[in-house]
Amino acid sequence: MNQRELKKLLTDLRKGKVPLKEAINRLKNLPYLDLGFAKLDTHRSLRQGFPEVILGKGKTIEQLKKIIEKIDNLEKNFLVTKLSSGVARRILDDFPHLSYFKEAQILAKKISKSKKGLILILSAGTSDIPIAAEAAVTAEVLGNRVQKIYDVGVAGIHRLFNHLKIIRKAKVLIVVAGMEGSLPAVVGGLVRGPVIALPTSVGYGANLKGIAAFLTMLNSCSPNVATVNIDNGFGAGYLASLINHGSV
Amino acid sequence: MNQRELKKLLTDLRKGKVPLKEAINRLKNLPYLDLGFAKLDTHRSLRQGFPEVILGKGKTIEQLKKIIEKIDNLEKNFLVTKLSSGVARRILDDFPHLSYFKEAQILAKKISKSKKGLILILSAGTSDIPIAAEAAVTAEVLGNRVQKIYDVGVAGIHRLFNHLKIIRKAKVLIVVAGMEGSLPAVVGGLVRGPVIALPTSVGYGANLKGIAAFLTMLNSCSPNVATVNIDNGFGAGYLASLINHGSV
Amino acid sequence: MNQRELKKLLTDLRKGKVPLKEAINRLKNLPYLDLGFAKLDTHRSLRQGFPEVILGKGKTIEQLKKIIEKIDNLEKNFLVTKLSSGVARRILDDFPHLSYFKEAQILAKKISKSKKGLILILSAGTSDIPIAAEAAVTAEVLGNRVQKIYDVGVAGIHRLFNHLKIIRKAKVLIVVAGMEGSLPAVVGGLVRGPVIALPTSVGYGANLKGIAAFLTMLNSCSPNVATVNIDNGFGAGYLASLINHGSV
Amino acid sequence: MNQRELKKLLTDLRKGKVPLKEAINRLKNLPYLDLGFAKLDTHRSLRQGFPEVILGKGKTIEQLKKIIEKIDNLEKNFLVTKLSSGVARRILDDFPHLSYFKEAQILAKKISKSKKGLILILSAGTSDIPIAAEAAVTAEVLGNRVQKIYDVGVAGIHRLFNHLKIIRKAKVLIVVAGMEGSLPAVVGGLVRGPVIALPTSVGYGANLKGIAAFLTMLNSCSPNVATVNIDNGFGAGYLASLINHGSV
Amino acid sequence: MNQRELKKLLTDLRKGKVPLKEAINRLKNLPYLDLGFAKLDTHRSLRQGFPEVILGKGKTIEQLKKIIEKIDNLEKNFLVTKLSSGVARRILDDFPHLSYFKEAQILAKKISKSKKGLILILSAGTSDIPIAAEAAVTAEVLGNRVQKIYDVGVAGIHRLFNHLKIIRKAKVLIVVAGMEGSLPAVVGGLVRGPVIALPTSVGYGANLKGIAAFLTMLNSCSPNVATVNIDNGFGAGYLASLINHGSV
Amino acid sequence: MNQRELKKLLTDLRKGKVPLKEAINRLKNLPYLDLGFAKLDTHRSLRQGFPEVILGKGKTIEQLKKIIEKIDNLEKNFLVTKLSSGVARRILDDFPHLSYFKEAQILAKKISKSKKGLILILSAGTSDIPIAAEAAVTAEVLGNRVQKIYDVGVAGIHRLFNHLKIIRKAKVLIVVAGMEGSLPAVVGGLVRGPVIALPTSVGYGANLKGIAAFLTMLNSCSPNVATVNIDNGFGAGYLASLINHGSV
Amino acid sequence: MNQRELKKLLTDLRKGKVPLKEAINRLKNLPYLDLGFAKLDTHRSLRQGFPEVILGKGKTIEQLKKIIEKIDNLEKNFLVTKLSSGVARRILDDFPHLSYFKEAQILAKKISKSKKGLILILSAGTSDIPIAAEAAVTAEVLGNRVQKIYDVGVAGIHRLFNHLKIIRKAKVLIVVAGMEGSLPAVVGGLVRGPVIALPTSVGYGANLKGIAAFLTMLNSCSPNVATVNIDNGFGAGYLASLINHGSV
Amino acid sequence: MNQRELKKLLTDLRKGKVPLKEAINRLKNLPYLDLGFAKLDTHRSLRQGFPEVILGKGKTIEQLKKIIEKIDNLEKNFLVTKLSSGVARRILDDFPHLSYFKEAQILAKKISKSKKGLILILSAGTSDIPIAAEAAVTAEVLGNRVQKIYDVGVAGIHRLFNHLKIIRKAKVLIVVAGMEGSLPAVVGGLVRGPVIALPTSVGYGANLKGIAAFLTMLNSCSPNVATVNIDNGFGAGYLASLINHGSV
Repeated sequence: MNQRELKKLLTDLRKGKVPLKEAINRLKNLPYLDLGFAKLDTHRSLRQGFPEVILGKGKTIEQLKKIIEKIDNLEKNFLVTKLSSGVARRILDDFPHLSYFKEAQILAKKISKSKKGLILILSAGTSDIPIAAEAAVTAEVLGNRVQKIYDVGVAGIHRLFNHLKIIRKAKVLIVVAGMEGSLPAVVGGLVRGPVIALPTSVGYGANLKGIAAFLTMLNSCSPNVATVNIDNGFGAGYLASLINHGSV
Repeated sequence: MNQRELKKLLTDLRKGKVPLKEAINRLKNLPYLDLGFAKLDTHRSLRQGFPEVILGKGKTIEQLKKIIEKIDNLEKNFLVTKLSSGVARRILDDFPHLSYFKEAQILAKKISKSKKGLILILSAGTSDIPIAAEAAVTAEVLGNRVQKIYDVGVAGIHRLFNHLKIIRKAKVLIVVAGMEGSLPAVVGGLVRGPVIALPTSVGYGANLKGIAAFLTMLNSCSPNVATVNIDNGFGAGYLASLINHGSV
Repeated sequence: MNQRELKKLLTDLRKGKVPLKEAINRLKNLPYLDLGFAKLDTHRSLRQGFPEVILGKGKTIEQLKKIIEKIDNLEKNFLVTKLSSGVARRILDDFPHLSYFKEAQILAKKISKSKKGLILILSAGTSDIPIAAEAAVTAEVLGNRVQKIYDVGVAGIHRLFNHLKIIRKAKVLIVVAGMEGSLPAVVGGLVRGPVIALPTSVGYGANLKGIAAFLTMLNSCSPNVATVNIDNGFGAGYLASLINHGSV
Repeated sequence: MNQRELKKLLTDLRKGKVPLKEAINRLKNLPYLDLGFAKLDTHRSLRQGFPEVILGKGKTIEQLKKIIEKIDNLEKNFLVTKLSSGVARRILDDFPHLSYFKEAQILAKKISKSKKGLILILSAGTSDIPIAAEAAVTAEVLGNRVQKIYDVGVAGIHRLFNHLKIIRKAKVLIVVAGMEGSLPAVVGGLVRGPVIALPTSVGYGANLKGIAAFLTMLNSCSPNVATVNIDNGFGAGYLASLINHGSV
Repeated sequence: MNQRELKKLLTDLRKGKVPLKEAINRLKNLPYLDLGFAKLDTHRSLRQGFPEVILGKGKTIEQLKKIIEKIDNLEKNFLVTKLSSGVARRILDDFPHLSYFKEAQILAKKISKSKKGLILILSAGTSDIPIAAEAAVTAEVLGNRVQKIYDVGVAGIHRLFNHLKIIRKAKVLIVVAGMEGSLPAVVGGLVRGPVIALPTSVGYGANLKGIAAFLTMLNSCSPNVATVNIDNGFGAGYLASLINHGSV
Repeated sequence: MNQRELKKLLTDLRKGKVPLKEAINRLKNLPYLDLGFAKLDTHRSLRQGFPEVILGKGKTIEQLKKIIEKIDNLEKNFLVTKLSSGVARRILDDFPHLSYFKEAQILAKKISKSKKGLILILSAGTSDIPIAAEAAVTAEVLGNRVQKIYDVGVAGIHRLFNHLKIIRKAKVLIVVAGMEGSLPAVVGGLVRGPVIALPTSVGYGANLKGIAAFLTMLNSCSPNVATVNIDNGFGAGYLASLINHGSV
Repeated sequence: MNQRELKKLLTDLRKGKVPLKEAINRLKNLPYLDLGFAKLDTHRSLRQGFPEVILGKGKTIEQLKKIIEKIDNLEKNFLVTKLSSGVARRILDDFPHLSYFKEAQILAKKISKSKKGLILILSAGTSDIPIAAEAAVTAEVLGNRVQKIYDVGVAGIHRLFNHLKIIRKAKVLIVVAGMEGSLPAVVGGLVRGPVIALPTSVGYGANLKGIAAFLTMLNSCSPNVATVNIDNGFGAGYLASLINHGSV
Repeated sequence: MNQRELKKLLTDLRKGKVPLKEAINRLKNLPYLDLGFAKLDTHRSLRQGFPEVILGKGKTIEQLKKIIEKIDNLEKNFLVTKLSSGVARRILDDFPHLSYFKEAQILAKKISKSKKGLILILSAGTSDIPIAAEAAVTAEVLGNRVQKIYDVGVAGIHRLFNHLKIIRKAKVLIVVAGMEGSLPAVVGGLVRGPVIALPTSVGYGANLKGIAAFLTMLNSCSPNVATVNIDNGFGAGYLASLINHGSV
């Protein structure tokens, strides 16, 4: 409620156009649905253009079903992320109209049809694909044109350079890498646009389950690179979509 | 050089329109200026829309002067960052037409006049101001409209909410915080647009010189948040500018 | 035994009112019950107002049964924490009068009836609920009025503000958060009373199994916040009870 | 502004008792004083019972003087912490009515006269005294009875036991320790009341500048212990005062 | 072979008392038994007074059986440590004359009968017992008088003080603790003799799987404390035995 | 394509000896085989003398089979590393001409027959053997003479010195160690040649899953030592082979 | 006061041999001297055979002088450690009968004349000498025969083996090393006696200011090795003396 | 002394060709020069082809002068590394025939004239030059042909590709990088030969003083990369020389 709307409401109240109770409600209303164990942020689709996203990991099937039942009624679209295929199957039994993306471990209501701009998703290795897919499905559900180029890590950098044309055409890039996490810095130096660095826990030993990768990415010399959490494909896809759509 | 340009060059070569030597040069030309101790990436203004930025810290005054002399001749604008006022003074003796921003520790050739969009820079505390200023000056030099709101950390969160209107109007936000680094996550939940989280080394003890802050930011639940290096005001400003200008 | 009691004992001894052996015993008595593998601190209910609490994790069922048998005879009430439901079931077979709280993973003798003050427990997410429940059950067993508000993390901070009235009325607050752990700092800035920050291992990647959360909490700018161990719901509930009861 | 006050304001507005502008102002008023580089949280004394506390470290003398000038006019009392004696001297030139506590590195307007309860501050070593003093002065300024026992670390634990009577009489304890940080856990086991563990950076080598101490404290087996940031004497004193005063 | 022995050997060689081949052998002989995948250090019983100790963890049953077969023939006594009961059972099928200590997870040839001195083993908690037992069995096999006092952690320190007499009589102490690891520092301050601090991985959260405990122990203010690896009961028992026997 | 080849190609193009399309292709050709989820770097055998090596861990059996089918047709030899025996068995069903090395967890097409130089592989313990074997099989497949000496760790250093002659004759050494990781530094001081330090995750507690070992190795005082990732037997074997073959 | 002494005191009290006041005093007496900022543990020479040792670092000159004045009157001998030569000079002005050991940074009252056993101190490098000297002076002041062999690190291990005879004759060894910290493990494998591993902060980069060294030492495969804090020469010397004197 | 030499010596001894004393000496001789505080490893030039290298950092000028005096007499060549120019000047006063390389902070007796192979040194940035120079001077002193290409970091990777021809011709590469440390992995994928990754402490914030860089390098996907300590230019140069000379 901005300054103008507030003035309007109070003027209307003084003039008797709006009853006292309604004024109180509008100033105090609950912008979420309270399930006790969860508070669905139903204003988020207004505030941020897309409903709240549910993190599947760490919730029981019962909790997930209750949340999905509510949000499915209220919203045109929604996402559940980090959802294992076993749990997804049991949810689809009750909600057969939803779509599950196995590689991405994402459950969604529907894929947006109108596609805009180009979000390019590059992965350093084959093992990074599930996290890259999480980012890709997120961005597609949110209405973006998405293209994927997998396994173009720096150990054979000519594989990357072969795609230079499409790389330079993308409006936003998501660069996914585990191990030493160097790919975002290299890509950052090749393009004009913003690069979202997405570290994964792929690797072993001194990768420290992804810490090595995010340290590399935070230290990137290319100033067009910003980093999200290890294995946070959803976050990368969401942010890329925001930048791609470009309006507030 | 894209596919089309390559085809054109080779066709011209075969037709004799372009001499052999020139073809070789154009395929092999040096897209940088070699000073021995540094290679100025003179193609960057073509490739990325702004010339290479010089990190002032860790270079000798002699190295800086040589680099600035070259880049000043070649480019319409450039930045030197993390430059202490003592060193800046000695450089300004030789290059009096440059501008030094003391709080931001930035030397620039000129400030872009045409301003676009709105980049909002929020700082959690007063001690974060130098890094926030580095981001602000960078974004201004790069041609963005910039607004700053300082000292709105979560310990008195009503200071933040008082600016909700401008916060929600910004196209991109840079949120600067040291200590526990919570502000970007809170702001991320309030706005639609992308939030660049900029951790600082401000604080003491368990802040671990900024590690605590960037861990907080990487773990942010708001999916519109991405993080840059500790104290990397320049990077945050640059990336915000990219997103604000919005075109590749 | 304080100075006055000591003087009294020694005077009585000199006067022959107390036999030598009793004096020795009273000066040397064993304030615990020795089971070999464990020493039950039976004085603790005198010294600290509540009997020793048994950490269920890391003990065998046999050890737990022996401890419970003894403590059940000696004490009016006691707690076993971090007790999985499988183990709890086997203990309840032998001690059917005890109560097991599945979500909180706590076994208790009885819940105190008289309730005092208000301890408010806030959780940032749904996945934090088991640890929040551990704190809640602990505080209830210890005789406190407890209220819980779950899933009010900073990514949708209006969910928190909607409860501002009850938040400001609580005498002590326990704020539970995993991931980036920002909620306690925000709440700390909103209330007068003490806030116990309870980090959880909920999250993934850069949460470092809870380290990120406790670093955030230790760095909190709000000076009314203190932190306990990751996932230590019992400790938070116990300390909150102490503060709530307010007397030494 | 609670539900009742809001209803009252809106009723008054409708009845014309309160002009529109005033209603807007009261709903929108700025609960802080904006100095540009800082926003003084002037509502904090209402909200939390004591004005905002200024962290001296990391601010310029000019910033500090401007902040102090404002806050000195507005508030009955205030604190500046982590203020070196050199800077304090220059501030006292302009504000001679303020008091500077050198050992504690604190500047305050006045010491509260009415003292309540007993906050006991224990330090493990002599080198921990400056941080212990920061906690002590904070608590005294805030109107608490404070007693200090220094150099009672666990390497000679009889020094601690000699003070058992006073230790058990204290309403709140602040236990300060660097190095291995064991003292709070030991004290926690001896008393009924809450113990605030205050780690310091005192020590060398494997103390990791205080990290070892706070890890020890977070892991404390005594459930009446909570931990604040390394060297955060102010926070410990503030929280102890809150608990000591005991009312919301 | 010392200077005197070397001189003797060479003199004998020159005099023809020792054949050339034997001289070469004695200068070059293999002080171990080579099994390919392992080299049994058969000189160790000469060099260090006890045969090589086999780490059971990380070896296959086949490797263990081959090693045990050889060492059993060659040595009067030996130890296999960190050996799970499942594997031990299969080894005992082939070597029924060996003894397995389940709690300590140790397999030994025989327990030395002559006992000397007193090694006292204190554990902070019940969950530390398996590691304490590993230390105890090691010391007993090596011919020491061993006494154990379990569950005397600092949260109820009177349990410790009740054993002060025996604690002060011990020639060497092994103090076992997980969690915050404070017990060794406290015990170190109470006794004259050397204290071996044995950290365990017992605990959760900020214990960092034992790192918190060993940092505490390394930082101990009591100068009679030295630390071994996390969960290294064998090492602590071995070193205590060395100190107890006291001769080189 | 070097300067000379480029000049030749362009001259040929101008002279009409090479068609335009071919010139474009040769300048733009794809030096890899694209399977979508993977890009086989088929130029690597030209560029680096050996085809791309496939990391078995983290790929599905389907992905592995598709990759192997392609690479098996294209290349004379290849390696799949970190391949568990269960997965290997299923691959061997389809590709029975390949060889699987169980201890080394490596699948290879064939072992090179011509052997050159001497790569000596030393392991500190028996548990390090699987990683040492990974290095050994890699080096053998790549055409090196390899010798292995296992279990010569520094706790019985005479076992090492007994092999001094062969140790000093090796052209390259790979020294494998977990736990405290001291062996490479000791060996480095004994030999002229380069030493590749290969840390393993073998050990427990303060080994931090191999971090302790690689820190030791990076700090080695012997200047002929360089370190690879924890458990990276393949990398060590590959690099040793490169150095052994000695030509670019 | 043991059981027997307690019985005696109480019997004497009952018989009137000891006045009430004295009994109270003897049960309650202050076993330390209270200077306010420090509590001198004057019983320590009884309890542990040597007076409290003062850590010079982190205390003001005034504090040190006051402590030394008291302890000098009370005790036959004492130590001040980590005392810079500048501060030492100012103390020697007032206490000219004390001795300062510059390399070891130790101030002592006198060196014990009677020497016993042999403590051998080995250092890996020349830069480790100050810490090695701290250990050596401590052990000498405490009445031990001490021998030093410096600069025998593992990069040239023959330097170590040349001293094998004296190394094997020592009753206790202190092995000092920075960088990779391997020397204690090697020495541990060569000797029967206990080895105190003393890590130093010597080195750079991945030494992490001594963390790498103590991790190496904690992981030592030789079971006769225990570790003290980084740069804690005093602790190593003290513990070695305890073991060398061998009686409780 | 190998088997054959030993047999020869003993045969000669038996035959009386070699006196007893000489035999003892040859078996027991001191392969170093003992200065007390240092043991110069004078056999190292025999054993490893180059005399011991002195680490200048952490030694006093007096120690350095004594070491240099001895080694200068004994050896044809030697190096002192990490030597500040201030200290170097004072050493050159006494030893004017030595050469000091200011950028590399190295003092050497003479530069080898005969040059062999090609060691290529690449640095990611200008600030990495001092460490790159340390590697370069080391390799040159040791008789290698060295070429340097500075400032070719991945943020402008075309600068690197422009030197592909020389990069692929080098026999060994040293790749120096701070910040995110990605360059070695990229270079490793471009060349056949071995790559020595040399991390520097250049950067700020999340570079963690070089830890981020060495983690990146240890995780490198290119199998021809091995890593040395942070800022260890000497080690990289020495190892590159060893590989370049290629013989044992």
